[in-house]
Amino acid sequence: MTSADAPRPQLKIRLIHLDTGRENVAVMSRRSKALRPEVFSGFSRVEIRRNAKSVLATLLITDDDALVGPDELGLAEPAFRRFGEPAGTFVTVSPATPPDSLDAVRGKIQGRTLSAAEITAIVNDLTRYRYSDMEIAAFLIGAARFMTSDELLALVSAMASVGTQLRWDRPIVVDKHCIGGIPGNRTSMILVPIVAAHGLTIPKTSSRAITSPAGTADTMEVLARVDVSVAEMKEIVAACNGCLIWGGHVNLSPADDILISVERPLCLDTREQMVASIMSKKLAAGSTHLLVDLPVGPTAKVASALDAMRLRKLFEFVGDHFGIAVETITTDGRQPIGNGIGPVLEAQDVMAVLGNDPKAPADLREKSLRLAAHLLEYDPHLRGGAGYARARELLESGAALKQMQKIIDNQGPSTCHKDLGTLTAEVTAERDGVVSAIDCLQLNRLARTAGAPIDKGAGIRLFKKVGDRVEAGEPLYRIYAFDPAERELAVAAAKLACGYTVDDAQTFREQVM
Amino acid sequence: MTSADAPRPQLKIRLIHLDTGRENVAVMSRRSKALRPEVFSGFSRVEIRRNAKSVLATLLITDDDALVGPDELGLAEPAFRRFGEPAGTFVTVSPATPPDSLDAVRGKIQGRTLSAAEITAIVNDLTRYRYSDMEIAAFLIGAARFMTSDELLALVSAMASVGTQLRWDRPIVVDKHCIGGIPGNRTSMILVPIVAAHGLTIPKTSSRAITSPAGTADTMEVLARVDVSVAEMKEIVAACNGCLIWGGHVNLSPADDILISVERPLCLDTREQMVASIMSKKLAAGSTHLLVDLPVGPTAKVASALDAMRLRKLFEFVGDHFGIAVETITTDGRQPIGNGIGPVLEAQDVMAVLGNDPKAPADLREKSLRLAAHLLEYDPHLRGGAGYARARELLESGAALKQMQKIIDNQGPSTCHKDLGTLTAEVTAERDGVVSAIDCLQLNRLARTAGAPIDKGAGIRLFKKVGDRVEAGEPLYRIYAFDPAERELAVAAAKLACGYTVDDAQTFREQVM
Repeated sequence: MTSADAPRPQLKIRLIHLDTGRENVAVMSRRSKALRPEVFSGFSRVEIRRNAKSVLATLLITDDDALVGPDELGLAEPAFRRFGEPAGTFVTVSPATPPDSLDAVRGKIQGRTLSAAEITAIVNDLTRYRYSDMEIAAFLIGAARFMTSDELLALVSAMASVGTQLRWDRPIVVDKHCIGGIPGNRTSMILVPIVAAHGLTIPKTSSRAITSPAGTADTMEVLARVDVSVAEMKEIVAACNGCLIWGGHVNLSPADDILISVERPLCLDTREQMVASIMSKKLAAGSTHLLVDLPVGPTAKVASALDAMRLRKLFEFVGDHFGIAVETITTDGRQPIGNGIGPVLEAQDVMAVLGNDPKAPADLREKSLRLAAHLLEYDPHLRGGAGYARARELLESGAALKQMQKIIDNQGPSTCHKDLGTLTAEVTAERDGVVSAIDCLQLNRLARTAGAPIDKGAGIRLFKKVGDRVEAGEPLYRIYAFDPAERELAVAAAKLACGYTVDDAQTFREQVM
Repeated sequence: MTSADAPRPQLKIRLIHLDTGRENVAVMSRRSKALRPEVFSGFSRVEIRRNAKSVLATLLITDDDALVGPDELGLAEPAFRRFGEPAGTFVTVSPATPPDSLDAVRGKIQGRTLSAAEITAIVNDLTRYRYSDMEIAAFLIGAARFMTSDELLALVSAMASVGTQLRWDRPIVVDKHCIGGIPGNRTSMILVPIVAAHGLTIPKTSSRAITSPAGTADTMEVLARVDVSVAEMKEIVAACNGCLIWGGHVNLSPADDILISVERPLCLDTREQMVASIMSKKLAAGSTHLLVDLPVGPTAKVASALDAMRLRKLFEFVGDHFGIAVETITTDGRQPIGNGIGPVLEAQDVMAVLGNDPKAPADLREKSLRLAAHLLEYDPHLRGGAGYARARELLESGAALKQMQKIIDNQGPSTCHKDLGTLTAEVTAERDGVVSAIDCLQLNRLARTAGAPIDKGAGIRLFKKVGDRVEAGEPLYRIYAFDPAERELAVAAAKLACGYTVDDAQTFREQVM
């Protein structure tokens, strides 16, 4: 089907200013001089070639010569960038033969167990953007049905192999990862300076928000540059024992970036996929000891102790196989951690904790110390059980703050705006009582609607947490935004569902009992 | 999230000349005056509203003011058509709340059995284009995992309810359906005139090709108009007892059209989905008696007698529930039926059989008579067992040809080109021997590559069938095309895999034994 030698008309490529995200998209004229576009419609995907170089793309048709003429082939921005040839280059277009690895995807849908070679081929084709969105969804849903232990190991291994692989010449490289879902919860920015100040190596890479109002990388970016190269990262870690940078820039797991971008809109989040995503990144990052934070709560990703245990066993199994010492810790995931939701507000919480500000959120401080204590125990020279005291000592003495300042200096200054949103709105309690529940999902959504993480200073500041007494009309939280339309959208959404449940004190006491 | 009352900037809609098929696509400027597009990226889908009217769409971003300015919202052709408002209309745009029925899709992926109400909601949202491609794929793959009997019945019922529902005031309305996959095989165009000439009612609707080189509607279109309205269809059937029209134009199962367009590129074809697709259309078409043709062969959709039996049971179960008398018949699906592949070539085969031409393909004639015999037995006035003799009598007497001419006259003249492709190429045997196998999938693909069904006269004429002796260099088939590039592509593909297996006579005899 794709004999490159057959003589056939060529088209000149042209950049179409459309951002189509992960999917490659090509645009052809309905009067195309190469092949008639109707011929392609049954094939749904086309292969664009110049000599040995090729990309697969989804084809759209146009009647507008101003967009794409009959002797042209339009490539949307991502496809143009990935093809890497200048505008005007002549290319051939043919119906795409689907990637061979799609046979394995179909097998998976039909319930077959895949070999390591098949899983590697799928991951390689995914990473080379040879799958359409539908095909990625097919793999994820097929794999969501069941995945054997061997398949999971093969997936972790394949995902860890397609990107950058960091190696450190130190015997202990510690790392901490939270499975996410809890607003606020910026413990990494507190425990990394504590652990680094102690002297352990902790080269932390974090993600940017995808569907949440802030990732650790978004929040750290308020304080310092986070898009550093692999070479710079190594220098920073050599100087500071640790860093707090964006993992996407060092390309640790390109396959994971693609899979997550399809999992999120479909709300697919199986245990196996979660473990594959995290462990492949840690394997690529060269971590030797990993602490996984599993928040448990009704609106958290893990809803029960049983689910947490299953997840723990899976992390341990994969960790043992690849020689990473994995420990999991279940934490309180019933409500946000800290008071801020959104990059600037969260950065304020973090700096208040590091600065030993008496008004700093106690839950964020306590949780960070607890996690840091676990990490410090990986130091063979520390007396067993001394982790917590050591973590608190490093925090209270100001050593952690000093280490954070050093990390910030080494990563370089941030260029983003640090102001808080100037348009605010307070959401108030409708009745007297006690806050009995806070919906993490709804608060995430509201903060995003208000503009976070695009606007660093947009988000939500909480005034009340679970167990606090409130009076009717008293503010529960304040929304910060810059854009009037976004403020209105967030206020309207909060009116429909504010995310807080307020019960009378008696009912709340009964619930707690 | 979507309070329509909130005051926020509006955008003027603008048509973007892009054919995005089934998916709604909107384009927004990176400098949009309404909401910043980055805010939407995490939501992936947007809702576009004017008063009570709304559509959901996938959002693309552009930097090109000539395409979409900061105060505009571009709508690709299908979304513009479905929204139904003129260019320049002011609309609001907000992050889309996913359709509620997606919760049920997620439940299905996780292995839950869905209620009839949930399945109805999914089908309704699908048909209103509220699902993205990924979401449609998620439903199909989730349902491919397992589907209970009750779920299947609910799906058939929901799919039959969302489109046109035909009712006939006759006690017996017969129909025949082939599950497809076999090139040629245009039995409907022979048995409909036979059955109609006998006096039974057979209002046949057929599909156009999606990934095959011709559907019955494409082939019939060589002889007559097939895109007739429901009112015209009723007149034609009143005059002729039957018709041969395109089902898509009378909108019998819009949900099926959408599901199939995602199933095909993913090659999903479970028994349940096949039965739901066919039975929902027959239920909507008002059929009382249905004969289902199940070709069995190594490259057919049904590979074994066991698979055929399972499919039969499922057809019978659904037919019994909805009061349609269903009969299945397994037929030889090891190779194409007739000699032509492609609309004009297949129409020639059909007219040769109806005209009792001695050179007409015997396999097409025999199979059509066999199926017609079954259908005629539904006539209570016909003596049991007399169906075949009656079918042959109607064919040989010319009554069937006369009835076909009447149907063609009533449907009206075709406007399409009827010439055979002027660019030809013969594919020859590489060795002496006997044709032992023909790959239906590969021949379909070659005929499509040559231009069928877009070019009615493109396709393949077979000179040899299974069991025929051939000599090295002797032609196996001839490719017909109009476009030099398509001819070259088809020839190159045939060089890689011609679709024929030629063995020595001894080996072939052993295989047959």
